[in-house]
Amino acid sequence: MVLKSNFADRLICEIDKKQNPSVVGLDSNFAKIPQFIKDDFEGSYEDKLKSASMAVYEFNKKIIDSIYDIVPCVKLQIAYYEELGGYGLEAYKKTSDYAKSRGMLVIADAKRNDIGTTCKAYSNAFLGETEIFGMKKKIFDVDCLTVNGYLGFEGVEPFINDCQTFSKGIFILVKTSNKGSEEFQCVDTVTPYGKNYMLMGNLVKKWGEPLTGSSGYSSVGAVVGATFPEEAHNLRAAMPTSIFLVPGYGAQGGTADDTLPCFNKDGLGAIVNSSRKIIFAFQGKNDDRNFQTYVRQAALDMKNDLISALKKGKICRWK
Amino acid sequence: MVLKSNFADRLICEIDKKQNPSVVGLDSNFAKIPQFIKDDFEGSYEDKLKSASMAVYEFNKKIIDSIYDIVPCVKLQIAYYEELGGYGLEAYKKTSDYAKSRGMLVIADAKRNDIGTTCKAYSNAFLGETEIFGMKKKIFDVDCLTVNGYLGFEGVEPFINDCQTFSKGIFILVKTSNKGSEEFQCVDTVTPYGKNYMLMGNLVKKWGEPLTGSSGYSSVGAVVGATFPEEAHNLRAAMPTSIFLVPGYGAQGGTADDTLPCFNKDGLGAIVNSSRKIIFAFQGKNDDRNFQTYVRQAALDMKNDLISALKKGKICRWK
Repeated sequence: MVLKSNFADRLICEIDKKQNPSVVGLDSNFAKIPQFIKDDFEGSYEDKLKSASMAVYEFNKKIIDSIYDIVPCVKLQIAYYEELGGYGLEAYKKTSDYAKSRGMLVIADAKRNDIGTTCKAYSNAFLGETEIFGMKKKIFDVDCLTVNGYLGFEGVEPFINDCQTFSKGIFILVKTSNKGSEEFQCVDTVTPYGKNYMLMGNLVKKWGEPLTGSSGYSSVGAVVGATFPEEAHNLRAAMPTSIFLVPGYGAQGGTADDTLPCFNKDGLGAIVNSSRKIIFAFQGKNDDRNFQTYVRQAALDMKNDLISALKKGKICRWK
Repeated sequence: MVLKSNFADRLICEIDKKQNPSVVGLDSNFAKIPQFIKDDFEGSYEDKLKSASMAVYEFNKKIIDSIYDIVPCVKLQIAYYEELGGYGLEAYKKTSDYAKSRGMLVIADAKRNDIGTTCKAYSNAFLGETEIFGMKKKIFDVDCLTVNGYLGFEGVEPFINDCQTFSKGIFILVKTSNKGSEEFQCVDTVTPYGKNYMLMGNLVKKWGEPLTGSSGYSSVGAVVGATFPEEAHNLRAAMPTSIFLVPGYGAQGGTADDTLPCFNKDGLGAIVNSSRKIIFAFQGKNDDRNFQTYVRQAALDMKNDLISALKKGKICRWK
């Protein structure tokens, strides 16, 4: 049951294999999936929420089929599944399993946070296993989970323990991509770290040290938005062994150049996420039946855009 | 569809009706429910996770039956349902519906947080509604949700909008009950507010002002632990119109006296939660079949304990 490999090492291996430091976010909002898929599924099940959930799963499978050979990771934003209820979570689980069967790593973007036995229950759901009727069951069994660290180490420790036991990872929110993140995260503290985001970054670094793999990177990473290059630069300097999960590229306005401060000199240390701009790349094309073509092209465009920026910055590790 | 009443006003009305400012937390960890219920449900469904989820729902119904006439609110900690997967979420929804059918208010303790359309999707799931196939569907439809405010107002606004549209409430984490909350929440800032928890408290106050009801209290409240009476005192002074959801009483070591700083002089402004000490009050009694008796007694003991403290503090509003 216990895997010996380290999540950070596995992630870097997959990034190198596909020569692509990007993540595609499956923010698969039912409202925005192609109409023909919705039509195919309408009335398929008695419960309309099940029909909608299975339509989303179908869409996700096609997205994964379009990108699995060129993109190392998918990020599944759970809110779009929770808004479909229990069947939505079933679609979530099926999507995760399907992505893994295609050789992709799965990040659950759920920003969970709690303490003690409650935190452990979340960890059971996403990273570990639940014991019922004398059996151990995997629930979502993703590779990695996003976590909100406002509660301190007690809100992180159960996840970290399961990261060690099950060879998983977490990314803790440090500097989020939204403009209004300044309201709290950029407030100056009296600590030597400076602003709140730097304080959180230093905590994440400390918490993650025991999970450093043979790559030199830790399985406890940080969420750092592409929309604040200066803050990313400060964090990169302060936490060299943490991998950054970088939202904010694409639809939120961050450019490939903006993501550069998130990388280390070795060309590693960041995975850049794009969601809507990839999975809904077919919108406005009036060609829904061929949506996979647009999705793959958008994923390739993103890869090339990032590689160009890395090359320009002289930190690309691939030829 | 749009309700005109204010959540804070409804909550205070229910507290007054039952003369009890307490909340019972349905942290219904499958491992800890009575063995005879597990035995009754083992093998009931092909999927063991469904059997476990329906056993939890059965347990919850009996808990609610034991306390609905004396306790105004239940708090459903979603982690214990997520660790059972999609069926667990079905049990969550059924429990929420059952509690409402018994006249109780339901707080979803999920500490959700995200921005923009993602935050709106969470809000659809818990407070509002999801549109599929041209229909609007309620998903969990609880009365109130806990939220983590680390992302700033953009992580709160979609919830607030739905609070106004659907007559719902939120409680935002300010000072949590765990000892280690000091690590981040008690760090001094350079703002006039002082420590991080005071900064967050003042943000919550500002965000909540437009949702103030005729009671003078806002539907945007704060989570403030009973385990830090001094910090609670500071917050109470800074945010007089916010209702505090108070964890940490009971199993976590907070006493009724410790909760007093969370109340205002009018004897309102706080609802005190206890979870394990109430719902698992039967443990160690060797009398599982009568677990409801112990649960009801524990809920009554808590009510009396709080009322005694309020009377001693000369702020009890009931005779």
